Order: sequence, then C-alpha cells, then structure tokens
Amino acid sequence: MTDSNTTIEQLKRQVKKFVTERNWQQFHTPKSLAMAIAVEAAELMEHFLWCENQAKEVFANKREQIEDEVADIAILLINFCQANDVDLSRAIECKIKKIDKKYPVEKCYGKADKYTDL
Amino acid sequence: MTDSNTTIEQLKRQVKKFVTERNWQQFHTPKSLAMAIAVEAAELMEHFLWCENQAKEVFANKREQIEDEVADIAILLINFCQANDVDLSRAIECKIKKIDKKYPVEKCYGKADKYTDL
Amino acid sequence: MTDSNTTIEQLKRQVKKFVTERNWQQFHTPKSLAMAIAVEAAELMEHFLWCENQAKEVFANKREQIEDEVADIAILLINFCQANDVDLSRAIECKIKKIDKKYPVEKCYGKADKYTDL
Amino acid sequence: MTDSNTTIEQLKRQVKKFVTERNWQQFHTPKSLAMAIAVEAAELMEHFLWCENQAKEVFANKREQIEDEVADIAILLINFCQANDVDLSRAIECKIKKIDKKYPVEKCYGKADKYTDL
Repeated sequence: MTDSNTTIEQLKRQVKKFVTERNWQQFHTPKSLAMAIAVEAAELMEHFLWCENQAKEVFANKREQIEDEVADIAILLINFCQANDVDLSRAIECKIKKIDKKYPVEKCYGKADKYTDL
Repeated sequence: MTDSNTTIEQLKRQVKKFVTERNWQQFHTPKSLAMAIAVEAAELMEHFLWCENQAKEVFANKREQIEDEVADIAILLINFCQANDVDLSRAIECKIKKIDKKYPVEKCYGKADKYTDL
Repeated sequence: MTDSNTTIEQLKRQVKKFVTERNWQQFHTPKSLAMAIAVEAAELMEHFLWCENQAKEVFANKREQIEDEVADIAILLINFCQANDVDLSRAIECKIKKIDKKYPVEKCYGKADKYTDL
Repeated sequence: MTDSNTTIEQLKRQVKKFVTERNWQQFHTPKSLAMAIAVEAAELMEHFLWCENQAKEVFANKREQIEDEVADIAILLINFCQANDVDLSRAIECKIKKIDKKYPVEKCYGKADKYTDL
C-alpha cells in the first residue's frame, strides 16, 4: 500500500478489521476517540519538545517512532470517522473550500500571522 | 471526492496546492505542525468535554463543526507527512501489523484495559 | 510542605532552585513551556482514557503516578510564570472574578452545558 | 492576593467557593477535569503556535489573554486536586525530589537533551 494507490475507504477497511476482530468498537465513543487522538498528538509533539532547530536530526534519528505516532493519530481519526459516519475526503474537501475563502492568497501570501488557525 | 474513490495522494495534492499558493510551506517545521495537530485535537475534544453520555446529541447538533475539526487534524497530518516524506498508507499498514501482534485477539477480545495505547 | 502552609512564592523558589542548578532556564521559552504543559496534560489524561466509570478504581491503583503527573503540570506552569513574570495568585483571582460574572449562579446552577469553558 | 502571601489552601478555598455556588462539583470526575486541563493547555500553546522567535512580542501584545489561560489551567488543576484529595504542595515536593535524583546536575547541566521529561 502506498499513498498513490490507497483510498481512504481501503484504510477504513483495514482499521475496521483490526478493531472488530477485538470487539473494540464498543469503546469507540466520540469522547474517548477524541481523547485518544489528543493523547497521540501530544506523543508526536513530545519528540520535538526541547529541540529548537534540530528537528531534522530528530527525524533522522527516530523516523520509525515518529511515523508510528503519525499512524496512531491517523488510525484513531479513521476510527472516529467510521464510528460517526464521517466521509473524511468530503470533510477535507469542504474544509479546504472554506479556508481557501477565509485566507485569500493576496492577503496571506507568506505571512505566518495570518495562519492563526487552519 | 468520497472515501471510496479518493487516494491519500490526491488529498496530499489538494492540501499542497492550498499551502503553496500561500507560500506557507516555510512554516511547516515538524515542531510547528505537531503543535498545530495537538491544538486541533484539543478543539475536537472540547466538543465532548462536559457531556457524559450525550455524545450522540452533541453530534446531531454540531456535525458540521465537528467534521471541520476532523478535517483540520487530517489536513495538518497530511502536511506533516508531505513536509517530511512520510507515506501515510505505508505507515498505517506498518503500525497495524505491529499492534496486530502486540494485542493478540485471544487476549484482548472485548477488553478495554488491554487497549492502553493504540 | 502542605497546601495549608505553602505559598506559591515558596513553590516558585523550589522550582527555580531545581532549574537554575541545571542551567535549564535557557530552554524556558514560552513556546517550549506551553508545549511541555500540553504534553504533561495529555499524560495525566491518558490514565483515564479507556475507562468509562471506573475512574475511582484507576485512582486507587495508581495514585502515585497520577500525583506525579499533576505535579509535572504544576511545576511547568510555575516555570512558565517565573520565566514570564506572571503572578499566579493574582492571575487566578482576576480570572475567578471574570468567570464569576460570566457564569451567574442563577443561570448556571447545576448545568454542565453552561460550563463550556472555565 | 500575590504569590508571596497566598497559600495553595487559600487558592483551593477560592476555587471551591466558585464551584460549589454553581453546584458544579458533580461534573468534576478525574476524566473530565483531565480533559479540561488538556483543552486549556492547548489554548495556551496556541498563542505561540506559528511564531518562531517572537514569543516576547506575543507576550507583550496579549499578556492578559495569556495570563487568563495560565489561570484556567491552574484553576482546573486545583479542582482536580480538590476532587481527589491531592495535596499539591506535597506532590510537587515529592516530584522535585524524584527529578533531582533522575537528573543529576553533573550530567544534565545546560543540556536540553537530558530534559526529555520533567
């Protein structure tokens, strides 16, 4: 599986298989999944915590762990979508349309201070 | 775009277009993106904060906002992957293999206490 | 030291001693400390992640670890105050005055839905 | 109230008054309070999100808001302690003793990479 040939649906199916085999879908309330996503997001962030500008070295030294954290967040997000009938591709498309309007290129070009909130 | 016909690559391309049009890729250090993901994860979680068992009602009343938060997390995660050459599908596949071993069905079936960490 | 006889100033002094002995105050930018607080907050939260109503048992079994997480957050918050000249007692007093007005007793009594944001 | 003349006990009393007047202590499960602390920690962090080295300017421009976020975290942490019989001063003192041993001065002096976890 690579990003060029994998649909979100296929990822959903893989994640679902893992979860239903263990009968864990019962724990997948929106509240618990949102908490779990936040916990994993903090774990990803922790890798970059006290390093100021050496993020590239951090990556070189712990790529596998970092990719695991990224996958954790993605897997939980997919679970959240699945448990609550969210079509992720459609949600992303809608959101990009909104921020495309909210952050007009001519106003925001190259400015971090416009980028307050995705 | 729907989950059944959208690949991660296509999502990556859409997100990249939005970012490069604004020349924002310069802000996409791993540290800042990880922080941003954590901020958005907390915003998703906040919707379920003081409700105990009414998560379904919360969803019914604010589906659009919640889907927006989900999309925010996904967009930032995709940015993180793009900025750091992470193939998300492959990362998810690898991680599922690991947790498949780490949480054997016969030990973990229906048990939340085994589910300490995805 | 107990809560009844310890001032915030005394806690600040203790924390400062630990930090300056290691020459770590140089890492205490507001950004890094805010990240560190968020990481510790997620660690505290993780203890209650997949348990629904057994929080009391969780506490009984891991009080020491949980108190350590609480202390971590407090220590980092005190560092944040110290590094940025924040008088914590005064900040708390000001904030309580604000929320006292924002959440009038007669409107908010016993209602979680009014409690959207402390 | 200032840090030099305010004990944790006094802060606990103030917070308790606010909460019990609204009959909100019923919502103060460890799970919900831990979530709330994480949400507020993310809000504090958000102020420093896309700024790299201008944290000082951020502070100058939004000191009041930032102090409010700091107070939010402190108030919720105090609620957490109160709801679960945690003596915060004692917890901090214990934790400092532990990290004092875990991070010996001679090994950690001026090194961020030793400072992985407070």
